[in-house]
Amino acid sequence: MIARESLRWNGWGRLGESMHLTRAREAALLAELGRRLGRPIARAPEPVELDAIKLPPPKLAPEILARMRAACGEDGVRTSAFERVTHATGRSLPDLMRLRRGELDAFPEVVLYPAEEGAVAAVLRIAADANLAVVPFGGGSSVVGGVAPCFAPGQAGALALDTTRLDRLVRLDAESRTATFQAGIDGPSLEAVLAARGFTLGHFPQSFEHSTLGGWIATRSAGQQSDGYGAIDELLVCLRVVTPTGVIRTIEVPRSASGPEINQLLLGSEGALGVVVEATVRVHPRAERFDERGMLFRSFHEGVAAVRALRRAEIGVAMARLSDEGETELSLLLRRDPSRRFDPTATALGLTERFGYGAGRCALIYGAEGDRHAVRTAMFRARMLLLRHGGLPLGRGPGRSWRRDRYRTPYLRDWLLDHGVAADTMETALPWSRLEAGHDAIVRALQTACVRHAGGGLAMAHLSHSYLDGACLYFTILYPIDASRDLEQWAAIKRDATEAILAAGGTLSHHHGIGVDHKEWMTRERGVLAIEALRAAKSAVDPRGLMNPGKLL
Amino acid sequence: MIARESLRWNGWGRLGESMHLTRAREAALLAELGRRLGRPIARAPEPVELDAIKLPPPKLAPEILARMRAACGEDGVRTSAFERVTHATGRSLPDLMRLRRGELDAFPEVVLYPAEEGAVAAVLRIAADANLAVVPFGGGSSVVGGVAPCFAPGQAGALALDTTRLDRLVRLDAESRTATFQAGIDGPSLEAVLAARGFTLGHFPQSFEHSTLGGWIATRSAGQQSDGYGAIDELLVCLRVVTPTGVIRTIEVPRSASGPEINQLLLGSEGALGVVVEATVRVHPRAERFDERGMLFRSFHEGVAAVRALRRAEIGVAMARLSDEGETELSLLLRRDPSRRFDPTATALGLTERFGYGAGRCALIYGAEGDRHAVRTAMFRARMLLLRHGGLPLGRGPGRSWRRDRYRTPYLRDWLLDHGVAADTMETALPWSRLEAGHDAIVRALQTACVRHAGGGLAMAHLSHSYLDGACLYFTILYPIDASRDLEQWAAIKRDATEAILAAGGTLSHHHGIGVDHKEWMTRERGVLAIEALRAAKSAVDPRGLMNPGKLL
Repeated sequence: MIARESLRWNGWGRLGESMHLTRAREAALLAELGRRLGRPIARAPEPVELDAIKLPPPKLAPEILARMRAACGEDGVRTSAFERVTHATGRSLPDLMRLRRGELDAFPEVVLYPAEEGAVAAVLRIAADANLAVVPFGGGSSVVGGVAPCFAPGQAGALALDTTRLDRLVRLDAESRTATFQAGIDGPSLEAVLAARGFTLGHFPQSFEHSTLGGWIATRSAGQQSDGYGAIDELLVCLRVVTPTGVIRTIEVPRSASGPEINQLLLGSEGALGVVVEATVRVHPRAERFDERGMLFRSFHEGVAAVRALRRAEIGVAMARLSDEGETELSLLLRRDPSRRFDPTATALGLTERFGYGAGRCALIYGAEGDRHAVRTAMFRARMLLLRHGGLPLGRGPGRSWRRDRYRTPYLRDWLLDHGVAADTMETALPWSRLEAGHDAIVRALQTACVRHAGGGLAMAHLSHSYLDGACLYFTILYPIDASRDLEQWAAIKRDATEAILAAGGTLSHHHGIGVDHKEWMTRERGVLAIEALRAAKSAVDPRGLMNPGKLL
Repeated sequence: MIARESLRWNGWGRLGESMHLTRAREAALLAELGRRLGRPIARAPEPVELDAIKLPPPKLAPEILARMRAACGEDGVRTSAFERVTHATGRSLPDLMRLRRGELDAFPEVVLYPAEEGAVAAVLRIAADANLAVVPFGGGSSVVGGVAPCFAPGQAGALALDTTRLDRLVRLDAESRTATFQAGIDGPSLEAVLAARGFTLGHFPQSFEHSTLGGWIATRSAGQQSDGYGAIDELLVCLRVVTPTGVIRTIEVPRSASGPEINQLLLGSEGALGVVVEATVRVHPRAERFDERGMLFRSFHEGVAAVRALRRAEIGVAMARLSDEGETELSLLLRRDPSRRFDPTATALGLTERFGYGAGRCALIYGAEGDRHAVRTAMFRARMLLLRHGGLPLGRGPGRSWRRDRYRTPYLRDWLLDHGVAADTMETALPWSRLEAGHDAIVRALQTACVRHAGGGLAMAHLSHSYLDGACLYFTILYPIDASRDLEQWAAIKRDATEAILAAGGTLSHHHGIGVDHKEWMTRERGVLAIEALRAAKSAVDPRGLMNPGKLL
């Protein structure tokens, strides 16, 4: 079970964890950022302490609380400030801004920890009787406002339904290579259970360390190695979802043509239909070995062509992540060690320039995992293919950094906030034929948006999660925060970014989801009729609109 | 465009096409069948001619017909007996029984051939005004009653909306390897268009020669080489569907986390939400080469283990089809040539017995297609793996037969009906851990059902379409028809078969769909709530229930 006490209440991830930069690197990075953003970087106001946050008193009637205790146990009904604050937001940039200032719009009235399916159903009945919205809450790592304690006009408030006590392995079917878990299990616990039996799910999103299986399903999560293992929609076999009118369950078969796919109606449903309480997923033999390496390309264009060819060759590569020029330069900056007289990275890069890998160069990390032989073969074939496409090998170093930092990068955001710099990410997916033009247009729009709303900023991107017909583009922006209007500034930039993504023909999200932040654009992407069909399906199982209002639909 | 005149009006497939058995083989097969079914096989009553069928006069008002002509053109509005009869059924066993007797329950009032999306929308408006049900009709090869001209109480009748004039390539995106077609294009036309540009879709269901892209999508079709290319749900990128309240369209991106997947709500929707008018699909480079071979296993158990290992090895095999003992014996019977003194097949099989491949033996056909090198590698690795699992190579002969007969086998059904023998097929999917027990239980139940309702019969199966977590089982039964109650006999056997499949934990269909025939079991498989959610989604886009009533939901 996720120990909420071990997580930062007002930042990303685990207490004590960070990007682990040395002081010297931090200083160099800040100086360089200051140069690029056109202003010196100074420390931002200190974030408030948790107990400085003013919470409205919970307003639940004693008989409602008594029923909740009957369903979830004494310890499963919590109204402490810590619980209410840690269940009041996800981990989006505006969430962190609000938390740091201690100014939150809304809090759940109560946080409930049901430990079995029956208790979840009981909670939904109590919520209906008490006229409370229900916000399913797993790891709480949503970066799109997916767990905000919204409630509809006329509702008395919201309760957070924390699923993390639902964390058991229900059964493992080694012959079919499927595992059934209660859906509140977190990434490390799930992988530990599987590892003890020789298996892995292979689903490693950046939030892996503090997100849950049910959350992955509800948001259509994609792991960093989805090219090899598949994203969560490909890993899911069947599930159980408790809705206000009963349980939806799908059956454990590898495929069905019995009408529209119900799994796919629940994947990405973001708690708006019900609470995912159990899921059966496809597992793989535990990887014996992994290998990740770097390769440099002369341009993004060359790199994209290489990744596309790599994907099409179906070599068995699990991950290929191509940074564009801007991201390549920034990550080199992160690697440079100002305290060392002789910096091997800088020297190596100096050398590459002689071979034509200078301005515009783009770094690729690619990797495979699995059994010894398969990894060796895949990496050899990938290397040959990438060399043919103009790649310059950078060896294992970049791969090692990637693996070491795979869950760490988001911690940079908190450190940057400490210094008044905002870091935000957006993502989309595009077909290959529109990918480069889309990349250029969106990066340009992001840059323009930063200048317009923040007086300056950096925008960069990488390509990851590739498919036969296209790939995901993942954007990062950095801009100086105007503390007097940080949320307005963010909203204005977010609006421009989203418009640029839709204008390029991209989807609102490849793997972050919709939540509160993308909701107003949903009809643009899906069309009026599809949204009406989804709303009708929701009303059929949640006629009173209890489930996670204000998001998705 | 499918030339309906070139198809059998009361049987499977194309005029002039058959299983191409020699007279001697036919006679030997009938004698053997007679022995196995415990009664001599005699010719059944001759099927009636089309013009012997009594049709009720079409009852459409002249102004409605005029509006239809305005939408579809003079030639796009047809009320001839030929059109109404050929659009009155699909190609299920009971469909053929009714057609051969000339006793159909219902006919469409009119058959419309809209040639563009706007005309489809106009037809739906006219249907609403005339209070007519709309039955989308592609190739008409449904084997589950998916195109029966049902209409709801209170509706004035049904019209058939034939999509086959919607048969253009809209665009090819060679860089993204996607192709956009109007959805009424048939298999051979689609492959010809792609082949001319160096591509293939790789979707080859048994109905390939006379089924349509839209039909494949609406029924969640799986091609015979879906292990390599993926089934239609994996091939689909996006689509346009005309519903009575407007167009649902999805966007062309490789993946999205923008809520539940709308493509997946329309895949398998069987015309109950609207008419698929356009679809973008993933294409592959045209296969340079194909190679299919046979392998014999001592038992179904050994064969299943081999196929499972083959699937897990991800070697690049496009097809693996393992016949059980009963099907293996019957297919050997089909191959035996009674006119030859020296039958090489019989001799070879005699030899295999010496190696322990006697009673209980099971034949596997496996194959790969793609570029020369990939096919060679895949087939070599597959052979090594299968040998390790106890396989005895049968060489290329069985593979050649499979490819030659891949679309021909269903023609046997008509020939058997000529001789008073019914042949029907059912299919399901099961996880590996329940596959063998499920196979045994279902085959036993089918055999019992044939004895109980027909006094005898044969039941057999093969495994095909394998997945990491399970596979499809495809069952064939043969039984003597009691002409005085053929439909009742079929319905009783179908009921027992379906109950056995559900009892084994299987899905109602792996790739045939639901239609009329499986409808009553849908709630058992999906659960009340999921069905209510789907019905609500349907009502949102088709509030008056015009679209293909009586099927699916």
